Amino acid sequence: MNTMSTPPQLLKGFRDFLPTEKRARDFVATKVKEVFEQFGFDPIETPTLEYASLLLGKYGTEADKLVYTFTDRGERQVGLRYDQTVPTARVLSQYQNELPRFFRRYQMQSVFRADKPQRGRYREFTQCDIDIFGSTSPVADAEIIACTYFAFKNVGFPTVILKLNDRQTLFSALEPFATETVDVLSIIQSIDKLDKMPAEKVVSELSEKGLGLDAAQKALDAIQFASVSENLTEVISLVKALGVPDSALQISPTLARGLDYYTGTIYEVSVPEFSSGSCGGGGRYDNLIEQLGGPVVPAVGIAFGFDRMVEAAKDLNLIPASTKNTQVLVTVFAAETATESAKIATRLRTSGLCTELCPLIGKLDKQFKYADQKNIPIALVIGPDEVDKKQVTIKNLATGQQRTVKQDVLISEIARFGLH
Amino acid sequence: MNTMSTPPQLLKGFRDFLPTEKRARDFVATKVKEVFEQFGFDPIETPTLEYASLLLGKYGTEADKLVYTFTDRGERQVGLRYDQTVPTARVLSQYQNELPRFFRRYQMQSVFRADKPQRGRYREFTQCDIDIFGSTSPVADAEIIACTYFAFKNVGFPTVILKLNDRQTLFSALEPFATETVDVLSIIQSIDKLDKMPAEKVVSELSEKGLGLDAAQKALDAIQFASVSENLTEVISLVKALGVPDSALQISPTLARGLDYYTGTIYEVSVPEFSSGSCGGGGRYDNLIEQLGGPVVPAVGIAFGFDRMVEAAKDLNLIPASTKNTQVLVTVFAAETATESAKIATRLRTSGLCTELCPLIGKLDKQFKYADQKNIPIALVIGPDEVDKKQVTIKNLATGQQRTVKQDVLISEIARFGLH
Repeated sequence: MNTMSTPPQLLKGFRDFLPTEKRARDFVATKVKEVFEQFGFDPIETPTLEYASLLLGKYGTEADKLVYTFTDRGERQVGLRYDQTVPTARVLSQYQNELPRFFRRYQMQSVFRADKPQRGRYREFTQCDIDIFGSTSPVADAEIIACTYFAFKNVGFPTVILKLNDRQTLFSALEPFATETVDVLSIIQSIDKLDKMPAEKVVSELSEKGLGLDAAQKALDAIQFASVSENLTEVISLVKALGVPDSALQISPTLARGLDYYTGTIYEVSVPEFSSGSCGGGGRYDNLIEQLGGPVVPAVGIAFGFDRMVEAAKDLNLIPASTKNTQVLVTVFAAETATESAKIATRLRTSGLCTELCPLIGKLDKQFKYADQKNIPIALVIGPDEVDKKQVTIKNLATGQQRTVKQDVLISEIARFGLH
Repeated sequence: MNTMSTPPQLLKGFRDFLPTEKRARDFVATKVKEVFEQFGFDPIETPTLEYASLLLGKYGTEADKLVYTFTDRGERQVGLRYDQTVPTARVLSQYQNELPRFFRRYQMQSVFRADKPQRGRYREFTQCDIDIFGSTSPVADAEIIACTYFAFKNVGFPTVILKLNDRQTLFSALEPFATETVDVLSIIQSIDKLDKMPAEKVVSELSEKGLGLDAAQKALDAIQFASVSENLTEVISLVKALGVPDSALQISPTLARGLDYYTGTIYEVSVPEFSSGSCGGGGRYDNLIEQLGGPVVPAVGIAFGFDRMVEAAKDLNLIPASTKNTQVLVTVFAAETATESAKIATRLRTSGLCTELCPLIGKLDKQFKYADQKNIPIALVIGPDEVDKKQVTIKNLATGQQRTVKQDVLISEIARFGLH
């Protein structure tokens, strides 16, 4: 790519959010935050740049290649935020004495991945995390799961499914099948793919790894009929007491999410009307914060796939026609009547209507055209006649109808005539 | 600085926002956005990274040194957002056919400057801009100025002062004093300092530049008694019609803001109870978007000093005790009563109270201590006795008082007993 003569353009894998898209994102963000705050989560923010040494070596060798790093003008090795967990580990360490014992925080910020851009995968995207630090109690797991359910419901998704599992279930069921060549983690890695590939393929993958075909089949049976651990049973009963309906909960003994750092519960959230794929996932990770350089502190949380949530919300028509769009365009008939138009605009704004005073003087047809372009439903005209008689002409741009009313009944006439 | 063994710490010039600070910032952001939307401004967002070629050579040689640039893994020269105007010029060019003719947008995002960190100056900070593109009408200038005034008032600032000037005033008054050695722009640069240094110093600076002492003094007199241009007179009468009181407007013929790219009105906003310094400034810049590689489009706008606004709002005690802080902690008496506590928490949340279910079982003193730590005013206790009798004990943590009530009157009793 020739960067010498680059015309003004976006970098690949990055996005502009124009008003319609930005409002959709703001809508979803507002809805989930409402629920986070109802559940007592506090917002925090960390900087976009950190020392590279903080970011590298935390996510594994493959991931390190995806961290944006560079040398700044002060010869410091720095990097762009890659996720919200590593900076939070730093925050937990740096402000140990200021943070409450059970710190429940939410965080919604951009993260950066030097990844190959693909459909639905971007180099800058929004992460949205809730976590509770400092508690090993199943109450904390239940609070995260219930908060997730209600956050998704608050966006308006008709059905929200939570798949639940825990590490203990996986280990108890699969450890008996581990051999010297194929350890239990390797078996779990294959089992985790049951969501995406048929059982026969998982069996053949396991036998390729070195497990006998018979043992592989038995491992699959064992996990599919595994009994629910005591911990998960307790979490589920709390989740139900927190108001989540039975129908939203699916015990899924094969769910492992790569297992990674999970030490207890593991879960995923999905919106079946949109896609069977996950819109977020998480679990308990009691050792991770220490591994990331933070204090020794148990933790449980979830990361929402914010971009997928926005896609889903648009797909299912959940984004309301915004009440924040301009409702009334006050046109300017001529230079002499501009202050009269300005006064009317002020009156409308004071009454709570989103209003624009048109920055074009005269040429009413062009002013109406602008209103059309921006989907403004109502335009007002205040010409010399109207000024004399203390009147305003209201034009409904959808129907083309118009009527002239007294200024002192303007607000109620606008409501009657053109706004729904 | 040894980056090899860096302990987890913040980069100099960058900030974490812990909950209290983040809520203060969110409060100010929400208040200004309310007014932006009342005035018909639409939100947009651009990516954090752009081609370096887009950013460099746009702000001058000195500024170029402050742009964070680096080579990404695909060998592209990229840079971090330095301001919001240059990316907006790209947006105006890239989406010309999609954007409305008079595009009024607001934008609130982080920008990055590889600058020396100082008190109140950061390497990552928030810019908050409103602009109207596509109109040369004084109506657009007036909309920006009025919107600024009401945005500041909506945050709660008791007094908001707008200093107003325009380029024409400066040129008409000062061009007569320009010489071959000292051009009018150089005179304006010195005059612009009248806010920060005494008149004698400005006079001596001008005479050092090569203007006679007498001419320098006369130039000062000329600008201080300059008459207001026709354009500014028109803008001011519109601003007043838009509801801004006379007392908020100060015509300031010496205000130049470095002049830079301004082609018409020039203005600054300040909050005198906090500081005489500016909390934002802007003006008309009809040629700049084209110079930045965008289309030929007139523009007028303002950049708010968001960080200063937050400082001012905190300093003047305008940040309300948040209604989003947790209001009630539901304690968990024992494992056997946990689901009962969870049900009570759900009932509270449903009624709109921000509620936490405490993720600690037993040890009530520690649960109360946590509530204290987080300034939660009310704790509820549901022990075996309470479960049996369908009761709840409400504890007011400020007074230490407690009372036991029936569950079905819980919500109203909480309101009566402990929340104000």
